[in-house]
Amino acid sequence: MSLEIKQIPYQYIEIDPYAKPEALLKINPRGLIPALKDGDWGCYESTVLMEYLEDLGQGESLLPADPKSRALCRLWSDHINRQIIPGFYRYLQAQEADKQAEFAGEFKTEISKLIDAADPSGPFFLGSGMGFVDVQIAPWVVRLNRVLKPYRGWPEPESGSRWAKWVDAIEKNEHVQATTSTDELYLDSYQRYAGEFAMAGKV
Amino acid sequence: MSLEIKQIPYQYIEIDPYAKPEALLKINPRGLIPALKDGDWGCYESTVLMEYLEDLGQGESLLPADPKSRALCRLWSDHINRQIIPGFYRYLQAQEADKQAEFAGEFKTEISKLIDAADPSGPFFLGSGMGFVDVQIAPWVVRLNRVLKPYRGWPEPESGSRWAKWVDAIEKNEHVQATTSTDELYLDSYQRYAGEFAMAGKV
Repeated sequence: MSLEIKQIPYQYIEIDPYAKPEALLKINPRGLIPALKDGDWGCYESTVLMEYLEDLGQGESLLPADPKSRALCRLWSDHINRQIIPGFYRYLQAQEADKQAEFAGEFKTEISKLIDAADPSGPFFLGSGMGFVDVQIAPWVVRLNRVLKPYRGWPEPESGSRWAKWVDAIEKNEHVQATTSTDELYLDSYQRYAGEFAMAGKV
Repeated sequence: MSLEIKQIPYQYIEIDPYAKPEALLKINPRGLIPALKDGDWGCYESTVLMEYLEDLGQGESLLPADPKSRALCRLWSDHINRQIIPGFYRYLQAQEADKQAEFAGEFKTEISKLIDAADPSGPFFLGSGMGFVDVQIAPWVVRLNRVLKPYRGWPEPESGSRWAKWVDAIEKNEHVQATTSTDELYLDSYQRYAGEFAMAGKV
């Protein structure tokens, strides 16, 4: 998404998370994505890669110029990485109804904190333009409708809310759409996380 | 430590982690340190604060100039935050001998990966000067001797090893020493994590 916004030419390679290609493992021994290859050099971890692309100084900056605003963006990116993403997986992996309810609540709370920290008019984190925090949260917003809704009955955002505005802006953004897989691929990739039984029961 | 190296004037305030002052909770509602106040503005999370101080452009840079080297530093800072620090807590909090042995092994493995990624001659991560990764690992190096040794029998680094060289350079660094508390304070602060029983048995 950062490469898209910055208009840096790139080749997009989707991988099968259950059959990781050698080329990925050469870049990241842990086999996690996103991973980036730039000439002979490779690196991984979404935030590290986004900072790297910022440092290249090509195209649009995703971080604002002011050090305090940059810190705010990094603080909430950290919140996404430490609270929201692990919360997504805890919720999706939970099999018992009471655990699912508990983790759904926690996941919503962490999202609420992010919303409260965002610019009140939006639609994005800092206002009208898509930036660092939006790129960090976008892949998880995309997974609400494509993964959490079918597997866990995740609801649509409350109509007219700040969150609805944000989700809508992310879903309609051309750079998000250019890096979003098919609905089937999301559903398949997360099937094992959600559990076969839950899958059979819900879909 | 970053403020020290950059020679930016600051006031150092130690807090009692079991009686968090209101001034800290105003900056960070979660009450975690480090937290920084700069005029009316406050922020938290060590990596976010370190990036903020880098962005101020005052004093010595802790990150190198080259984007790929910067990415390498951020990648291993991320490893410290996601693998080494949680590994430290898992190990310290484990009460059963077999769990302690298991988590000690995992903790050592994650440290080994960091050592393998470091400049071979050292003594620091990128070579002769203390930088971003060193500032991130230093507080945990300091805790090996002051917390893990008394509570868990953590051994001295193997004499003459790359790790011994790194630990020695960190322990002797004036900026590390300027921000290190007394041994008693470390021992007391981590007593509850280590468990009263373990404390009584080992110290």
